[in-house]
Amino acid sequence: MRPAILLLIMFFQSASITVQADDSVRALKEAAVASIDRQENDLIAMSNKIWAYAETAFGETQSSEVLASYAEQQGFQVQRGVAGMPTAFIASYGEGRPIIGVVGEFDALPRLSQTATPDKHEHVAGAAGHGCGHNLYGSASLGAATAIKQFMIEGNIQGTLRFYGTPAEEAIGGKTYMAREGLFDDLDVVLSWHPSSSSKMDVSGSQAMVETTVSFKGRTAHAAADPWNGRSALDGLELFTHSLNLLREHVKPTVRIHYSITDGGGAPNVVPESASASVWIRDSELKDVLVLYERMQKMAAGAAMAADVTAKVTLISGTYGILQNKEAAKVVHANMLNLGDIEFDEADQKFAKSLQLAMGVPDTGLDGSVQPLDLDPGEMSGGSTDLADVSWIVPTVDVNVATAPTDIPWHSWGVTASSGSPIGHKGMQYAAKVLATTGIELFLSPEKIEAINAEFKENTSGFTYKAYLPDGPAPIPASP
Amino acid sequence: MRPAILLLIMFFQSASITVQADDSVRALKEAAVASIDRQENDLIAMSNKIWAYAETAFGETQSSEVLASYAEQQGFQVQRGVAGMPTAFIASYGEGRPIIGVVGEFDALPRLSQTATPDKHEHVAGAAGHGCGHNLYGSASLGAATAIKQFMIEGNIQGTLRFYGTPAEEAIGGKTYMAREGLFDDLDVVLSWHPSSSSKMDVSGSQAMVETTVSFKGRTAHAAADPWNGRSALDGLELFTHSLNLLREHVKPTVRIHYSITDGGGAPNVVPESASASVWIRDSELKDVLVLYERMQKMAAGAAMAADVTAKVTLISGTYGILQNKEAAKVVHANMLNLGDIEFDEADQKFAKSLQLAMGVPDTGLDGSVQPLDLDPGEMSGGSTDLADVSWIVPTVDVNVATAPTDIPWHSWGVTASSGSPIGHKGMQYAAKVLATTGIELFLSPEKIEAINAEFKENTSGFTYKAYLPDGPAPIPASP
Amino acid sequence: MRPAILLLIMFFQSASITVQADDSVRALKEAAVASIDRQENDLIAMSNKIWAYAETAFGETQSSEVLASYAEQQGFQVQRGVAGMPTAFIASYGEGRPIIGVVGEFDALPRLSQTATPDKHEHVAGAAGHGCGHNLYGSASLGAATAIKQFMIEGNIQGTLRFYGTPAEEAIGGKTYMAREGLFDDLDVVLSWHPSSSSKMDVSGSQAMVETTVSFKGRTAHAAADPWNGRSALDGLELFTHSLNLLREHVKPTVRIHYSITDGGGAPNVVPESASASVWIRDSELKDVLVLYERMQKMAAGAAMAADVTAKVTLISGTYGILQNKEAAKVVHANMLNLGDIEFDEADQKFAKSLQLAMGVPDTGLDGSVQPLDLDPGEMSGGSTDLADVSWIVPTVDVNVATAPTDIPWHSWGVTASSGSPIGHKGMQYAAKVLATTGIELFLSPEKIEAINAEFKENTSGFTYKAYLPDGPAPIPASP
Amino acid sequence: MRPAILLLIMFFQSASITVQADDSVRALKEAAVASIDRQENDLIAMSNKIWAYAETAFGETQSSEVLASYAEQQGFQVQRGVAGMPTAFIASYGEGRPIIGVVGEFDALPRLSQTATPDKHEHVAGAAGHGCGHNLYGSASLGAATAIKQFMIEGNIQGTLRFYGTPAEEAIGGKTYMAREGLFDDLDVVLSWHPSSSSKMDVSGSQAMVETTVSFKGRTAHAAADPWNGRSALDGLELFTHSLNLLREHVKPTVRIHYSITDGGGAPNVVPESASASVWIRDSELKDVLVLYERMQKMAAGAAMAADVTAKVTLISGTYGILQNKEAAKVVHANMLNLGDIEFDEADQKFAKSLQLAMGVPDTGLDGSVQPLDLDPGEMSGGSTDLADVSWIVPTVDVNVATAPTDIPWHSWGVTASSGSPIGHKGMQYAAKVLATTGIELFLSPEKIEAINAEFKENTSGFTYKAYLPDGPAPIPASP
Repeated sequence: MRPAILLLIMFFQSASITVQADDSVRALKEAAVASIDRQENDLIAMSNKIWAYAETAFGETQSSEVLASYAEQQGFQVQRGVAGMPTAFIASYGEGRPIIGVVGEFDALPRLSQTATPDKHEHVAGAAGHGCGHNLYGSASLGAATAIKQFMIEGNIQGTLRFYGTPAEEAIGGKTYMAREGLFDDLDVVLSWHPSSSSKMDVSGSQAMVETTVSFKGRTAHAAADPWNGRSALDGLELFTHSLNLLREHVKPTVRIHYSITDGGGAPNVVPESASASVWIRDSELKDVLVLYERMQKMAAGAAMAADVTAKVTLISGTYGILQNKEAAKVVHANMLNLGDIEFDEADQKFAKSLQLAMGVPDTGLDGSVQPLDLDPGEMSGGSTDLADVSWIVPTVDVNVATAPTDIPWHSWGVTASSGSPIGHKGMQYAAKVLATTGIELFLSPEKIEAINAEFKENTSGFTYKAYLPDGPAPIPASP
Repeated sequence: MRPAILLLIMFFQSASITVQADDSVRALKEAAVASIDRQENDLIAMSNKIWAYAETAFGETQSSEVLASYAEQQGFQVQRGVAGMPTAFIASYGEGRPIIGVVGEFDALPRLSQTATPDKHEHVAGAAGHGCGHNLYGSASLGAATAIKQFMIEGNIQGTLRFYGTPAEEAIGGKTYMAREGLFDDLDVVLSWHPSSSSKMDVSGSQAMVETTVSFKGRTAHAAADPWNGRSALDGLELFTHSLNLLREHVKPTVRIHYSITDGGGAPNVVPESASASVWIRDSELKDVLVLYERMQKMAAGAAMAADVTAKVTLISGTYGILQNKEAAKVVHANMLNLGDIEFDEADQKFAKSLQLAMGVPDTGLDGSVQPLDLDPGEMSGGSTDLADVSWIVPTVDVNVATAPTDIPWHSWGVTASSGSPIGHKGMQYAAKVLATTGIELFLSPEKIEAINAEFKENTSGFTYKAYLPDGPAPIPASP
Repeated sequence: MRPAILLLIMFFQSASITVQADDSVRALKEAAVASIDRQENDLIAMSNKIWAYAETAFGETQSSEVLASYAEQQGFQVQRGVAGMPTAFIASYGEGRPIIGVVGEFDALPRLSQTATPDKHEHVAGAAGHGCGHNLYGSASLGAATAIKQFMIEGNIQGTLRFYGTPAEEAIGGKTYMAREGLFDDLDVVLSWHPSSSSKMDVSGSQAMVETTVSFKGRTAHAAADPWNGRSALDGLELFTHSLNLLREHVKPTVRIHYSITDGGGAPNVVPESASASVWIRDSELKDVLVLYERMQKMAAGAAMAADVTAKVTLISGTYGILQNKEAAKVVHANMLNLGDIEFDEADQKFAKSLQLAMGVPDTGLDGSVQPLDLDPGEMSGGSTDLADVSWIVPTVDVNVATAPTDIPWHSWGVTASSGSPIGHKGMQYAAKVLATTGIELFLSPEKIEAINAEFKENTSGFTYKAYLPDGPAPIPASP
Repeated sequence: MRPAILLLIMFFQSASITVQADDSVRALKEAAVASIDRQENDLIAMSNKIWAYAETAFGETQSSEVLASYAEQQGFQVQRGVAGMPTAFIASYGEGRPIIGVVGEFDALPRLSQTATPDKHEHVAGAAGHGCGHNLYGSASLGAATAIKQFMIEGNIQGTLRFYGTPAEEAIGGKTYMAREGLFDDLDVVLSWHPSSSSKMDVSGSQAMVETTVSFKGRTAHAAADPWNGRSALDGLELFTHSLNLLREHVKPTVRIHYSITDGGGAPNVVPESASASVWIRDSELKDVLVLYERMQKMAAGAAMAADVTAKVTLISGTYGILQNKEAAKVVHANMLNLGDIEFDEADQKFAKSLQLAMGVPDTGLDGSVQPLDLDPGEMSGGSTDLADVSWIVPTVDVNVATAPTDIPWHSWGVTASSGSPIGHKGMQYAAKVLATTGIELFLSPEKIEAINAEFKENTSGFTYKAYLPDGPAPIPASP
């Protein structure tokens, strides 16, 4: 152990010395920042591997393993396959309270394969891609956990640190299954972040959501010889999607509905016996989503009746809207200000501007600055995360860090490109530093953990978390 | 009475003299043809008046009166307002058997107003027009009845002649209400014709049909302020028509389905509380139409469920497919051959060709020739007539006569134009002659009536006619 | 002139006496309130007449005349038929500056006929109804103008007062035509109000809008005999509305799009040659609406191409988003607080609750209280008004007054019922008092007019108003 | 060589002996029938293997090899991979004229996996199945070719026999590529058959067809965060399919249009950048199909314009309507009468009836009888075959043989079940006998070949065959 750090930590452990505390904390944080800098090559290598694997929900075998192995190398105790999900794992260190969690994701999005170039070019035709930057997300979080662990060891800090490797965020929601299992129940605080096009401790929330599958079943017939003997499941599906699109006029502006057709029939000369869509519904609160979900079920039944087929609606998962914590947000924001802006260089800006032009948005480049903290923001923007379920169990931090150019559409090839480039890596490093310094501060500041939990208790008074999931285990697909 | 005709008639009434019969019948028919020629100005004037009135279903007050008055002037006994329909009437002459009916229609079609010119030019903006030539139909049939009546008087012929003025053929079906009332029950034969683009005694049949109204009911709201509080009846309707269009793939090629939207909502800034469509379904046989009708009711219910509104399907009327009579067809066809082709002149052909060019079909002009009689034709073409209901009660003749150029779409402005021009008038005169000579032949030939009825009995064995109508009187609209 | 009032007015006209001003103004306002109370029977009678006429856009012949005659009786100089619209008028009094305008509307909404009862019951089947309360609007505004005029006469007040009778607000936008004509150009302030379910000086704005007609043209054919020769305009229209509904996913939450089908084809047995819809698009700012309008034109063209028909998009009118004036709002709000809440009695509350239950909303009754003034509100609610065009020419007040129960959908039969009941009348009286007291205050306070205009100038700096209308006169329909 | 057969053949080769010819031919045919009976186990084994492989278009590697190997074992010279298609092959025997071809198919249909049981039960979940019986088709044809070859060897018959192993009939059309290559150009007659639910030499024809892919390209965005920045390719596709369904009203009853959605977007939280459908259009004649194909291209362009995306229509292949040959049909039909009916036993009937009940059709069982020959049939039924392209190059026989119960929908799990059961095997054996006896008869009867070719020449006078295919090689998919 480096003596200077030991000394600093001793300050805190002797409760009477508070005058010099601020300076000491600053120094400890600097040590954490240095740890992240030392890990830079490792983190970039990990994030690039996961970026190249580009594995989607519950298929993240290699991506998960990259992170779990690193955690083991860094001395964490790793439990793989938690909550019935092969790609979910928990890496632990230490014991006793406080218990602080760090969360990392690593799943990709279908069809967003793209090289790390600012012009559209598929990496692997038709393949998935990290259009949401989760390769950066998991790597930065694990880097942060590693730095915090070093601090705990060096400082002989009491408490428990857990890194949660959480799969399937883009679909289904791995954290919700972990939450149902109670894996977050004993935590004091959870730290997380998300790639974005700006750096902001945003407390405006996220949307609640249900993911469903809507399937139709008809009767085959030769589409040329005797189509009158067939009943087209696809007819049912197209009526259903039409009704969904009509519904858009009759929902509040906070609602989002989107779908893709996952089965649109087989050979055209056979009247389709089956057809299905994946449908997601979101609104500010889960209870409002559930009203629409019920209505959607009637829409499927009505469409089926009109097409003389049958319909089946299957719940995949439900997600709450996130509960932000303002006390925690203040700590995070201060750490961001301390760290200063992300320093994107000229090459980064050039890349970003080319990318912006290619995507048809203003070529304003990257914004590495720390956005002001607004503790009373207006309407939330669209989007959901299974981290929201965690946020109703334990006080949760979710901070945005810039890893992509301003204004480019999210869930796009442009984000995949950025997430495999130096832009993304710089954001990743920054995010790791934000989480590491915040984690250290919390371990050193029981009163802050207390304030955070007091706010949390007030906000969840009368509320009992219940995962909105179908019965049974997580829907892990069979191996290919 | 002209002695020659009297003499001829006496031939027939003395059963032993059959050798000279053919010549005599020919002479009597020539007298009938002469009668039609004498009526020419009257028939043209009547048909032009009805063409200009262009009154639609159950609104044919003036059109019906033109015909009823003429019948009275010609010595018929006229009973107006039969079967609860103000514009339906029966003009009778004579008594006892045989009883022969002649049918005439006179209603127009919405929106087909057009001047009697070969280029598209609305006569009255947005108004109805005789795009099916019923102005010619009613006038020719009444002209034929008048000629037959003269023959009966001059020949002191025993029997009853009835002219049926039948309203609302293009919608609802006036004859079906008359049929339900039993007004055709005691007839021996019914004679009718229809304007067409060729002259043919076609026995291939007509389609059965149901006419329905499909209405949706929702809930109003301000479409900008709180559309989420509204439930759009129009949404229900649009889903319903979408499902109808999807159904087209899954019906036999003999089926026809068509609709118009009769209520598509009011002010756009109000979420539509009501919306409705007029839907017609046809197939070769009524029983098959009814299967689809039932399915359509489910489609309306399903669409309503999907849009969270309510649906109501109302039966307007049902029509059978026509039952042709081959024995009768032979008599008619022979009379057509005797009459020879319609003689269209150069001006007619020029008009016809201009019209064809304006409608985008080959400019082949008019075809006045008599088409061959095919007693075993293939598939029927699309179209329905409430005369079909009559044809299941009494042997019925329905012959086509050319009143419009070849290949022009029916129910179009081109037919309106032709029906008000010399082309239409020539066809009308010809049709009157076909019906008159056929009627005379039947009055003189009990054995033909017998053969016709024998065929009819065989074809309807085991069948009991039942009008497929909603309970209650015909839906006469209130006066404006 | 009553001496007390004269005295009070003299206080103001002698610039040195300001100490007693407040009390004096209060007294003058009380006189205005008394004037409204004296007019009560007249205003109720006028509003009930207009309610019963229920005339829609540009057909408000009787409704307009009721108001214009009353204005004449009250000594205004009335100019009818301004800006080329027979039902638009201006009633003037006085001369010189300041010039203050009061605006009143009087058009009804199609299909919202309803008796003044809390259960749904059409007054005249299929007829229009005052589902937006414009019968109250015009009457209250004219009542206010009358009170202000009395004050001007009695106080020998310098300046000009104008009442604008503005037709066709619910469609087309009469004020926009008056604005194009320059009829508001010389005003200092315009006062207006709108019926609502709560009383609030709301400065959150209104939506910009374009109204359009989208028409398709195809080719007729017999829908059963040769539908393949037809090209259905209705097919084009249904594809177009489908594309409009798909667009809803891809617009910002501030956008509103709504339509009704105004021509959905004629007789079902004719392939529809024409079909059309009335389409309205709104967003916060006109420039954003115009982007969508352009996109909608492509949608119509694309739908037409897909259905092999032609499309035509016609601009009916464009409307700006309203520019509220906070300085004016403060004056109005203070007057509302002075007047206190609307006093709805037990019978009113009973009526309101029955109505709420019948419409399926919580039976919370009426809220007659004055809502707090929020000068920095969040998002505007949906809705547009042609008063917005006026608001970009002259500082404009638009205040909401409760005339209907809380939570009931606007543009509904429930609003028609309320607008013909004592509830509506009480709101109307209150609105008249708010406008009258505000008008008086402004005539007496040049510095307030100045402050209002200073704010206006700042907000409109660099902006030149241009009516977004098609060329040519207002589309006055031909007399029936 | 068996002396009896040799003797019989010698009869024919000596031209003078014609009296006993008929008997001799009968005996030779009996020898062919015996050959098929001897091959029974082999043919069943082959058909069952192909049934179990269930490989779809251009993936029939194992299925093709099963047949090619058998042909080699039987002494044919086999050329694999003809016309650039790895699974296409030609097995030849003999030399010189006449040249007679026998055609066999072996591809399966996606999603119709089913066990050989009369109740619905997938064999392999989601897999392909022989829902068109091509496992029987290829095996029977090769069995027939083998029998004919034996006859040629034993009789020292002059001429060439070719078996064509033709892939990808259910999609794309392998024969069309072989036809383009000229591989059928030198033939005198081609023999083929098809599994069916009755045994009939049907000359009513098949439909012409084009297969196309319609793809849309939009712009991704996060479907919850900023859907307004996305342009949905799926929107374009859904408008396109809607327009296709509307088109159904406006095509002749002979047309068939069907499609499946092959790409309906990826993750629902990404606005779909791509979407596509497989669309097939059929009508009696290729020229009419091409008119609709052109119209469909406009529909895709229109839908794309309406959804603000781009569309691309790709031709996969075109197929002619089949040209039947009546002279050949007479020969085939006579051979069927000679062979008598297929003898299905009680177990077969029981299986068939269970299957019929499970599919909701009347349980009338199997019909093994030979249907009458109607040389002047009415309308063709729906369906296409790439054999049609062959039929415009060389006189072609295409006879139906019962391999499945009456009335069950084709391209269904019921056909898959039948094709793997004794029912299918009996039909297969019968078909092999029909082709073998017909082939033998033609080799022995130059005058029949002449008559057949005379009819062919008359029917194709003025016609030059041109494959309607995109440029370039057949679209063989890359190996998995």
